[in-house]
Amino acid sequence: MPSFDSLDTPAALVDLDRVERNLQRVATYAREHGLRWRPHTKTHKTAELGALQVAAGASGVTVSTVLEAEVMAAVSDDVLLAYPPVGARRLARLLALPSHVRITVALDAVEVLDGLARAARDAGRTVGVLVELDLGMRRVGLKTPDEAVALARVAASTPGVSFRGVTFYSGHLRMPQAELPAAMQAQSQTLASFVDALRGAGLPPEVVSGGSTPTLWQSHTVQGLTEIRPGLNALNDRNSTVIGANDWTECAYSVLATVVSTAVAGQVVIDAGAKALAKEEGLAPGYGVLLDRPEIVVKNLSEEHGLLDVSATTWRPRIGDRVRVVPNHVCVSVPLHPRLHVVRGVQGVATWEVTARGW
Amino acid sequence: MPSFDSLDTPAALVDLDRVERNLQRVATYAREHGLRWRPHTKTHKTAELGALQVAAGASGVTVSTVLEAEVMAAVSDDVLLAYPPVGARRLARLLALPSHVRITVALDAVEVLDGLARAARDAGRTVGVLVELDLGMRRVGLKTPDEAVALARVAASTPGVSFRGVTFYSGHLRMPQAELPAAMQAQSQTLASFVDALRGAGLPPEVVSGGSTPTLWQSHTVQGLTEIRPGLNALNDRNSTVIGANDWTECAYSVLATVVSTAVAGQVVIDAGAKALAKEEGLAPGYGVLLDRPEIVVKNLSEEHGLLDVSATTWRPRIGDRVRVVPNHVCVSVPLHPRLHVVRGVQGVATWEVTARGW
Repeated sequence: MPSFDSLDTPAALVDLDRVERNLQRVATYAREHGLRWRPHTKTHKTAELGALQVAAGASGVTVSTVLEAEVMAAVSDDVLLAYPPVGARRLARLLALPSHVRITVALDAVEVLDGLARAARDAGRTVGVLVELDLGMRRVGLKTPDEAVALARVAASTPGVSFRGVTFYSGHLRMPQAELPAAMQAQSQTLASFVDALRGAGLPPEVVSGGSTPTLWQSHTVQGLTEIRPGLNALNDRNSTVIGANDWTECAYSVLATVVSTAVAGQVVIDAGAKALAKEEGLAPGYGVLLDRPEIVVKNLSEEHGLLDVSATTWRPRIGDRVRVVPNHVCVSVPLHPRLHVVRGVQGVATWEVTARGW
Repeated sequence: MPSFDSLDTPAALVDLDRVERNLQRVATYAREHGLRWRPHTKTHKTAELGALQVAAGASGVTVSTVLEAEVMAAVSDDVLLAYPPVGARRLARLLALPSHVRITVALDAVEVLDGLARAARDAGRTVGVLVELDLGMRRVGLKTPDEAVALARVAASTPGVSFRGVTFYSGHLRMPQAELPAAMQAQSQTLASFVDALRGAGLPPEVVSGGSTPTLWQSHTVQGLTEIRPGLNALNDRNSTVIGANDWTECAYSVLATVVSTAVAGQVVIDAGAKALAKEEGLAPGYGVLLDRPEIVVKNLSEEHGLLDVSATTWRPRIGDRVRVVPNHVCVSVPLHPRLHVVRGVQGVATWEVTARGW
């Protein structure tokens, strides 16, 4: 395959050398600490990268949509849907996954559990259930041990499902690595109160699943954790670098763009805008930075225009020059692209369709 | 086709009755004021909606990418690429549009003009050129009449291209309608200085193209304007409603979503997140509101979760209930969806593939 220089822009690039190092690093960490690694595939939505994760030692995959489950069932026989499956069509598709695939679902409500159990019975399957806990994220999940015990009890006694354990997501702990230990210790204590209550009720959780990318490297400090589900760290991005979850050299995703205008003083316009990078506020000003010049910030985005701030630099690219942009948040940039162009250095080595974009 | 209630969620809905009214309104306005209407199709990226615009009286279409040009060439024989075509592959694709299609390009640099002219000559075609002016947006475009005259002169004397006029985009005039007249009067004077300079140089612009959705209904106050290019007003969104460019009943786009969790007090979680709505800051707090209950705000988005703020209402939907969300900015939500589900009332009448998403 040719160099990525021949690609039309904007184009999503994945640096395979970096991906492989990122996967090895987390696989080693999980092995050393006796944690199962179940990467969240919502970050990349591609079967090929899911397969690399499984080959690197993932014990299964995590998905957030049924389409992701359908795509990842081709590369893993152990799928956790970390999202409540509500609705007849979603349930029907979930239960239609190949029969060799072990399905587990995270949920926080008895209505969802009942619908899932009914669909599972109709399909002649048993689906694992993880009770979703809210350890401070305030998005989904049960807030008290009593609520968790009550739902676990229903799960344990309802045909069609089996209670497997608990899950939580610590998306709110998105802070510099130095500030993490205190926050995670507090969280660990909260988690212990849930686990103790479940044990006391005769429902010891076989699975205690957590572990976002920002908290990843402190996962071993969480008492009783059995499984981590980092997604973003396969590719990393500007946000994860800002908080120190990875080095800049571990950023494996960028958007290749072409300089299209230099008419307005102090700025350079590239052809990667909100429709290629996503205009999502991040942990630092702007919407991304250049991979090769991280001091150059994407100060604003229109739909197809990215505005590079060059007011504090002598660097003056010319129309037609190319740059690579690392966006604030890789997970919302990837599904804007039909495919990922996989490179080693400048050399194209593969093209991966983002098969699981959409629903 | 069945009711939209049978759709998997999230799903993008287009209310065809509203679209038709929106198109009639702008077509009537343009006709009454002697303006050509060249809608920007980047908002919807679907051939079917482009065809409706042409049928309603559009004199051609505007596009921002070559893929949009390729898709829209099937429904219009007059395409304006309002984006500098930089790069050999982009130019080759542009010049490969069907020969009956009149191509015009907006640009602000002689390097872009030279590359375009060379590609046009190689293809045996002549491409129209509009010189892009910066009337205050500070994104692309030439800032002084002298610069505009210089570029127009090159365009007029270079084989392969022909100078057709000037273009500008007033995306910065995104303000309540009552504040617009003063801002547009100032802009009109600036525009006149460019047009006068071109006339004085023997290069009178045949086309003076402007007109965003926020400024749409004041376009007739811009001296010398010949053409308007609104895109968003085919569908409208929360931002355009906030500034009064349309009534709430003219919002024709929404994302159908299902309630999936009510575990956290004061909020309701739906399955339309940043990957369905786009997490773009808007002109009011939050990321969207419910079509049928515009007082309910989407206060935050994760990738697949939308958090409805129900703290100030007694409305308490149940898990499985469905809502329709109008996002802040329709143009960045549409390309997140593979297709648009077209409805009249609750009745599905068509499915339009978002063929021009990607590049």
